[in-house]
Amino acid sequence: MKIAGFDIGGANTDLAVIDFENGEIKEIKTDFEYLPMWSQNDKLDATLIDLIEKICPVEEIDAVGISMTAELVDAFETKTEGVIDIATTCEKLFDVPIGYIALSGVLSLEDLIKNPIDVAAANWKATSQIVAEIEKDCIFVDTGSTTTDIIPIKNGEECAKGRTDFERSATGELVYTGTLRTNLTSFVDFIPINGKDYHVASELFASTADVYNVLGLIKDEDFVCATCDGAGKSKEESARRISRVVCADLDILSMDEITEMSKFIHQKQVEQIASGLKEVSEREGLDKVVVTGLGKDILCAEAAKLLNLDFKSMGDYYTDEECVVAPAIGTALMMKNFIS
Amino acid sequence: MKIAGFDIGGANTDLAVIDFENGEIKEIKTDFEYLPMWSQNDKLDATLIDLIEKICPVEEIDAVGISMTAELVDAFETKTEGVIDIATTCEKLFDVPIGYIALSGVLSLEDLIKNPIDVAAANWKATSQIVAEIEKDCIFVDTGSTTTDIIPIKNGEECAKGRTDFERSATGELVYTGTLRTNLTSFVDFIPINGKDYHVASELFASTADVYNVLGLIKDEDFVCATCDGAGKSKEESARRISRVVCADLDILSMDEITEMSKFIHQKQVEQIASGLKEVSEREGLDKVVVTGLGKDILCAEAAKLLNLDFKSMGDYYTDEECVVAPAIGTALMMKNFIS
Repeated sequence: MKIAGFDIGGANTDLAVIDFENGEIKEIKTDFEYLPMWSQNDKLDATLIDLIEKICPVEEIDAVGISMTAELVDAFETKTEGVIDIATTCEKLFDVPIGYIALSGVLSLEDLIKNPIDVAAANWKATSQIVAEIEKDCIFVDTGSTTTDIIPIKNGEECAKGRTDFERSATGELVYTGTLRTNLTSFVDFIPINGKDYHVASELFASTADVYNVLGLIKDEDFVCATCDGAGKSKEESARRISRVVCADLDILSMDEITEMSKFIHQKQVEQIASGLKEVSEREGLDKVVVTGLGKDILCAEAAKLLNLDFKSMGDYYTDEECVVAPAIGTALMMKNFIS
Repeated sequence: MKIAGFDIGGANTDLAVIDFENGEIKEIKTDFEYLPMWSQNDKLDATLIDLIEKICPVEEIDAVGISMTAELVDAFETKTEGVIDIATTCEKLFDVPIGYIALSGVLSLEDLIKNPIDVAAANWKATSQIVAEIEKDCIFVDTGSTTTDIIPIKNGEECAKGRTDFERSATGELVYTGTLRTNLTSFVDFIPINGKDYHVASELFASTADVYNVLGLIKDEDFVCATCDGAGKSKEESARRISRVVCADLDILSMDEITEMSKFIHQKQVEQIASGLKEVSEREGLDKVVVTGLGKDILCAEAAKLLNLDFKSMGDYYTDEECVVAPAIGTALMMKNFIS
């Protein structure tokens, strides 16, 4: 039995196809594609099919699970509109059972229509299924391209105090910062260069992908988002974008200075994630951390270290590729239980 | 004699045409147009001509002064490239004498080519000419759509410690925050709603124009920048954009709550400007302030009040329309002296 789990984010659509044999996982295959849902949500159907066909013929899929966060993009007036629109696209596409990951479990289309908000930004619910298998009492920290989920798990069950994205913005459980797409000006106010503090320009001149590209902390194939200036993804082009953040250019700043700036920015983002993790850890009395997502090593683990918290990496149990799409794997697993 | 002064910014191109009679100002006419230079710098020539023709036939213009900040946009690899590109466009367009506002004064094209960086982001030099007439020892604070210049003047001469945008980012003299285009996440980390602090999403979901639109602090005709989601400029559409900043929507937040959020955001931006003003005021031992620009009343004056500094408004000497394009007026005045 083959189950597809999609995690439809604002910027990336992730897929995991799990092949089950006698109820056990035989094989997991994963992939993802950059799809900016704020401008190209009309291409969602083509993207979903493309992704599946790269892994296996769509006819071999027995069921499809869907989790989403893309309902927040500003192409939709409300989350309700976004959830319904995305679900409608999915229903037209597949002839097999489809389930939607919700805060209350897995919903059919019928149940989704009764309470669409239950499905909004519930993908961390899917991730918590996998993490609970690794550690029954812990906080998992999942930093993707754009956001960081910090979710407490007790006795194998997630117990996030905030339920929606909005609520989790106030509980430390959602830190809206990520490995690739984050505007540097959102978490850095000034950057020290040669002993002086330079305040940053409030434009979208550079994103975190540029910083980790310059520092060599992400692979070329992981730099999947668009660049801020439409130019390329070489280290020099990333450095040029970073130089603009302090109203400079590469005539003014050297590569060594850009590297120093990048290290400072990296540290600031670690501190930002640590701040949410500290809040959740102290409130819930949990001191074990499981890290995952594209930023698991360079951001989540560093945040745990900063707070002297014990941490395990999902990377010790799954491949790096699987960790990047953890919510999609969790979605497929929840869908399997739903139809079994 | 009619002199045109253009201030070519990244997002707005401003024009003042000053009609001189016997060396004295007889009449000032102004206008401005939204021109996003990062994506449409090929339309600069058409925009300059359009603007002039709205005020008077281009044949009646005796000389043209140019100041700029648009060389920073990411369509240009370096500031030098940007300055040369913009100057080349201007030279093709006008058959009368053209001068470029530089830190060292007014340059001909020949001198500009020898030192293009002298012309980069020198428009505040032009503003200082006007302000010095109002107050010989003061700090002027000019908040435009995108940035805030905070420039000390002593004995009628500007004495900014930083000379370039880059240097001024470290001296308090450039605070990269403005009345319209500023991403809220660049200066707000969290927003209190009903007693809880909600952390903001690091997207470009809403800009300061939305906040001042909701609060009724800018006129409809001043809301000249593009909206973040491509939707309209009604109060409700602005409120919807602001709701997304905390991952909410207008199903979750009421207009009253959005208004409370907007007041908090306004206060944070006042504090941001006050922080630069405080640094300059204390360092230079100056306690008189002259406020100008689109944000003169709602931002600059509030920042001066917060610091208990005496302030005058350029609005007491010039019309509101003239204050909005103060660098363009200063540019025309400097050009007049250059050719006289």
